[in-house]
Amino acid sequence: MTSGFDLAPGFRAAATACGLKPSGRPDLALIVADAPCTAAGVFTTNRVKAAPVLYDQRVLARSADSIRAVVANAGCANACTGDEGARDAAAMAGIAAQAAGCTSDQVLVLSTGVIGVRLDLAKVERGVEALMPSLDKTGGGDAVSRAILTTDTHPKVATTHLELGGRRITISGFAKGAGMIHPHMATMLAVITTDARISAGALGGALTAAVRRSFNRISVDGDMSTNDTVLVLASGASGAEVGAADLPVFVESLTEVSASLARQIARDGEGATRLVEIQVTGSPDEDHAHAVANAIACSSLVKTAIHGGDPNWGRILAATGAAGVEIDPERISLWVGAGDNAVQLAERGMRAKYEERLAAERLREDPVCLRLDLGLGASEATVWTCDLSEEYVAINAEYTT
Amino acid sequence: MTSGFDLAPGFRAAATACGLKPSGRPDLALIVADAPCTAAGVFTTNRVKAAPVLYDQRVLARSADSIRAVVANAGCANACTGDEGARDAAAMAGIAAQAAGCTSDQVLVLSTGVIGVRLDLAKVERGVEALMPSLDKTGGGDAVSRAILTTDTHPKVATTHLELGGRRITISGFAKGAGMIHPHMATMLAVITTDARISAGALGGALTAAVRRSFNRISVDGDMSTNDTVLVLASGASGAEVGAADLPVFVESLTEVSASLARQIARDGEGATRLVEIQVTGSPDEDHAHAVANAIACSSLVKTAIHGGDPNWGRILAATGAAGVEIDPERISLWVGAGDNAVQLAERGMRAKYEERLAAERLREDPVCLRLDLGLGASEATVWTCDLSEEYVAINAEYTT
Repeated sequence: MTSGFDLAPGFRAAATACGLKPSGRPDLALIVADAPCTAAGVFTTNRVKAAPVLYDQRVLARSADSIRAVVANAGCANACTGDEGARDAAAMAGIAAQAAGCTSDQVLVLSTGVIGVRLDLAKVERGVEALMPSLDKTGGGDAVSRAILTTDTHPKVATTHLELGGRRITISGFAKGAGMIHPHMATMLAVITTDARISAGALGGALTAAVRRSFNRISVDGDMSTNDTVLVLASGASGAEVGAADLPVFVESLTEVSASLARQIARDGEGATRLVEIQVTGSPDEDHAHAVANAIACSSLVKTAIHGGDPNWGRILAATGAAGVEIDPERISLWVGAGDNAVQLAERGMRAKYEERLAAERLREDPVCLRLDLGLGASEATVWTCDLSEEYVAINAEYTT
Repeated sequence: MTSGFDLAPGFRAAATACGLKPSGRPDLALIVADAPCTAAGVFTTNRVKAAPVLYDQRVLARSADSIRAVVANAGCANACTGDEGARDAAAMAGIAAQAAGCTSDQVLVLSTGVIGVRLDLAKVERGVEALMPSLDKTGGGDAVSRAILTTDTHPKVATTHLELGGRRITISGFAKGAGMIHPHMATMLAVITTDARISAGALGGALTAAVRRSFNRISVDGDMSTNDTVLVLASGASGAEVGAADLPVFVESLTEVSASLARQIARDGEGATRLVEIQVTGSPDEDHAHAVANAIACSSLVKTAIHGGDPNWGRILAATGAAGVEIDPERISLWVGAGDNAVQLAERGMRAKYEERLAAERLREDPVCLRLDLGLGASEATVWTCDLSEEYVAINAEYTT
């Protein structure tokens, strides 16, 4: 069964189960570009960075205009592994480089899984060998989107198209998420491919802009991983050049794919039963709105109340007051539900007149839409999270065992 | 059944069930001082402040040297209730003032419970009337320590003594906690009484110092309440004057009582099965150490791992890296367990050689002791939290219903 997901033209992909996951599920993915690509990456801001993150940052600093492959594994994060871990990440790139017919300088590496355990390179080597025969067949996009999953319940994929100068450009990406999801990149891996022709510098700027309004706008549990990475590779296979004037429309499409992947990650947060969309309006500026939306998204009390379908709006106001930015409690209004069906829960900082039954119904929708108006300005921001269930605890109390 | 807990000499107390809690359990407490007291308070830093918090701040600004009573209720937070809520808090003080034979300017008010619902003053009035006959009997300390509880499983009380100039001083306090517990005062109420004679100014300074190393060093769920308040009242009944030279020893004793109450709050966090003590050593300064300890204490992934008895030290290092302060991953060492029984989990940022079985045993102790050495300096800080269980979610998904 495949989802029919494909990478952008100019890329081939394959995946296999090489034995890094004890479950025996697919855990090794290889993406090979037909020709050198421009590439860019955004990485975790955690001060404890995994070996593959440090490796990729060095590769992109040197050869962002000649990337040929991405190799990714699940089951082992290769984090907190010291100098040996750094050598293992480079060796993993070397194995992929040999398969792709390039140098290890042209390979980016992604790892996710348990921290503090060394990567089994023999398994990676045998795995790359095993997946090579599949590399020229179609359907590789679907396979790699599955091989990077850990506690995710399903793959996250998104594709969009845009036209430039009569030529069609594809932007197509996949991601993994599940736990440790938080702004500034939590355990989240994403690879976005495009057949646009775009300089590495422009691609980097476009990715930063897209990440700001997508992957940095989601939170599952407030934890930040050592391995978070979002990569974008541009093959140029469409022949369509993204010039300076085309950049805004390219950024918009890249943001669309990124935001779709980000929402899918939030919706599939560990133990989640519903996506929660938190829109904060009436802020003096976007950063202010983001701070408030994020504080609400990070509140365990808000997320458990949503899980229980309980319109406990006081917890949302309490989280707002703890966001660390200036607000005026007596100007705050709050609604739950989308569009015309929204039920107003609070008005000028106090309880609005609403029917408990209707409010509880809106809280059981998927997605749950919360809108908070601060009454202070014209800026807004949206953050996505999920409800917090008993299942989140059960999953995380027994992850390594 | 009483715990035998008493307030300091110079205070009488009584409690009753006035019907604010649907369960019919005790929910109204009154403490009356025999003579005017000096008093001080530390309050939530949440920008959404409940009416009783704003009321107390005004009272203490005016009459911190002539406080006669504290009236406290559970079941209704009187938060997000607008101007009517402010009037209700003042009216509650007035009811207590009449009972205590003082003015409402001499009364401090505490409320905890559901947000956004108006306080039923008729119930408060009848309740104060009903508890008056008990006010002159002993055992009132035990009764009031129970009446302020919400989802707490048991009362939190602590008493210590010190000698000044041949006279014995008592410092005796009680608290409630359970959820929304976080540095900078989460839903936590505490009242500490002493029979020391001390100026309101010195008492305020002493309380700030004590809170910094006690109530501000605990975290249950990272949420910050609209109602948090710690009050201290000094009756002077011992006749022992706390002069400038005696202040350090008084602060030490006040900190001892505060820290005991704080640890009891963390241990009784909603759904908690174990107290977790996180000691960070080797920091350049105490604030730095506190930031790291707090980041670990706030990590849902760390707290669920502890709940599962899983020595997932990588999550602790990941939380350390996300603390927002400079660290060097390659200098970090980590132990679990107290004293000689401690098992080293990480050495210089990598896995240490340890037996899984022994590490898992240490994680099942109560308290669980984690010690993280940063290898950067000589300062340290300790933070207390609890494990995160499925029960936390179950409690908070159904609080108002």
